[in-house]
Amino acid sequence: MAASARSSPSRPDMTKERRTMSRISILGLGAMGSALAATLIRKGHSVIVWNRTRSRAEPLAAAGAKIAASPAEAIAAAELTILCVVDYDAARSVLTQAEDVLVGRYLVNLTNGTPGDARDLGTWLDAKGATYLDGGIMAIPPMIGDTGALILYSGSTNLFERHRAVLDALAVSRHLGDDPGLAALHDLALLSGMYGLFSGFLHASALVTSGGGKAVDFLPLLLSWIEAMSGTLPDLAGKIDSGLHSRNVVSNIEMQKIALENIVRASREQGVAPDFIEPMLRLAGQRVAEGHNADDISAVVELIQRQKRT
Amino acid sequence: MAASARSSPSRPDMTKERRTMSRISILGLGAMGSALAATLIRKGHSVIVWNRTRSRAEPLAAAGAKIAASPAEAIAAAELTILCVVDYDAARSVLTQAEDVLVGRYLVNLTNGTPGDARDLGTWLDAKGATYLDGGIMAIPPMIGDTGALILYSGSTNLFERHRAVLDALAVSRHLGDDPGLAALHDLALLSGMYGLFSGFLHASALVTSGGGKAVDFLPLLLSWIEAMSGTLPDLAGKIDSGLHSRNVVSNIEMQKIALENIVRASREQGVAPDFIEPMLRLAGQRVAEGHNADDISAVVELIQRQKRT
Repeated sequence: MAASARSSPSRPDMTKERRTMSRISILGLGAMGSALAATLIRKGHSVIVWNRTRSRAEPLAAAGAKIAASPAEAIAAAELTILCVVDYDAARSVLTQAEDVLVGRYLVNLTNGTPGDARDLGTWLDAKGATYLDGGIMAIPPMIGDTGALILYSGSTNLFERHRAVLDALAVSRHLGDDPGLAALHDLALLSGMYGLFSGFLHASALVTSGGGKAVDFLPLLLSWIEAMSGTLPDLAGKIDSGLHSRNVVSNIEMQKIALENIVRASREQGVAPDFIEPMLRLAGQRVAEGHNADDISAVVELIQRQKRT
Repeated sequence: MAASARSSPSRPDMTKERRTMSRISILGLGAMGSALAATLIRKGHSVIVWNRTRSRAEPLAAAGAKIAASPAEAIAAAELTILCVVDYDAARSVLTQAEDVLVGRYLVNLTNGTPGDARDLGTWLDAKGATYLDGGIMAIPPMIGDTGALILYSGSTNLFERHRAVLDALAVSRHLGDDPGLAALHDLALLSGMYGLFSGFLHASALVTSGGGKAVDFLPLLLSWIEAMSGTLPDLAGKIDSGLHSRNVVSNIEMQKIALENIVRASREQGVAPDFIEPMLRLAGQRVAEGHNADDISAVVELIQRQKRT
């Protein structure tokens, strides 16, 4: 496939593409690893694949990939290795099998985990003489290779810049800093935002359906309301960064506590369990009890932030 | 003001406007009640105001409102009365003072409360021979009179249609049905959605600031991610309505449980309290334990909905 793409005279960016083609190994061929490998093959890179269960490698071999017999063979044969396995324990186990070939290698790990997992692996690889970049994929497998996919990276700036063309072939790439934990931290922060959205949506849908309505009919109203309320977040973010939660408050935390109490009371009336609303009511109530009545709802963040806890 | 507006020859809609001008009483002149009264005065209606503390009525009197000496006097003088007080107990207390004049009156209540509060007040007013419409204001006071403001109504369709021009002068008006509890139910459902958004935003901001980042710098990425993830809600809403949670699942609840566990573990590593994430992890875990591994995250709704609880 790569060869036929290169021979086509109708593609104007051939010279540039040929110059940036790399030999890349992909370790781990679940849905995401397979999508990464297929995308790189399609974009003309030379791809080597390895998976614990070899059968998962075969469709990629049919598309032009070489199959390596071991993680060590895959890593030794490539300029860049991308790891995408189930968790960091699996990543460590795969890399331990290749311990002898790690010195001087460039490794990107796209496995899901915590900032601590990424920092630990970074420290271990550093001791082996390898260069490490951690990444968090903000996309589902079918989106890989499109501009709608985003991958957050942190760790070695040298690796990120050296192999930028390969990384950009997978998704929009953003490097957040040298601390290898930052990608996982931002990845999980974005997922937190999504689960907050989902929590509110599920509670709202449970309320509306308890009154005989349909979630589908209610959704357009909810989406336009969510979009309007998203407009208040820049002000709240500024309050979080400055700690000045009582500036230009339209609806203070004491008023919002009453609204939250109404939601919980209405939920109970309607037979809806208030699990998703209770944390905000409890924390808003705590701020009010501590005398922060006139603050904005942003003040709740101080109850969950590191520096405010002992 | 109304007189000078009517005499202006440059306004093309005068005939229509004059025909729809009404005598309206507003009871309760907090920030919201005052905004309602000021808007109706500005739009040429004849406005009568009453407030427990008379001084709050004076700026409106200066703008052209008449001040009533009691709730009964206000209600008796108007074609339509709008109530906007602190809660339903206060609403009942105000209306009890006017008990003798309620028969045949049209009353709109825009006080915040639960569906049960609205239904109880509707039953009470029905017994007094009054016609009742309940409303939930989806706006802050400065938005009243603009097209960005929305008021949800439920209860008497007759009242809604008869006084539609007045209601439309305040905000975009939407009538949800004859059950007076529906406006409060939908109002609180929208607020639930907003508090979900806020919960996710606060947790995400706590994570990012724990790693040395600024909430303001992170917000654009979060907003574009939230917008992208909002695109999955129509599918989830369809699953909630149909109960078919295992159709076309991209990321099943077992995979999402792992992501939620990573968020909680990362939060603990970073010293961030996971209050806002724990309910989703607990409920997702419960669904997985019950054998719903392959369902979408929408399946969590069945744990909080009325029909699934005993």
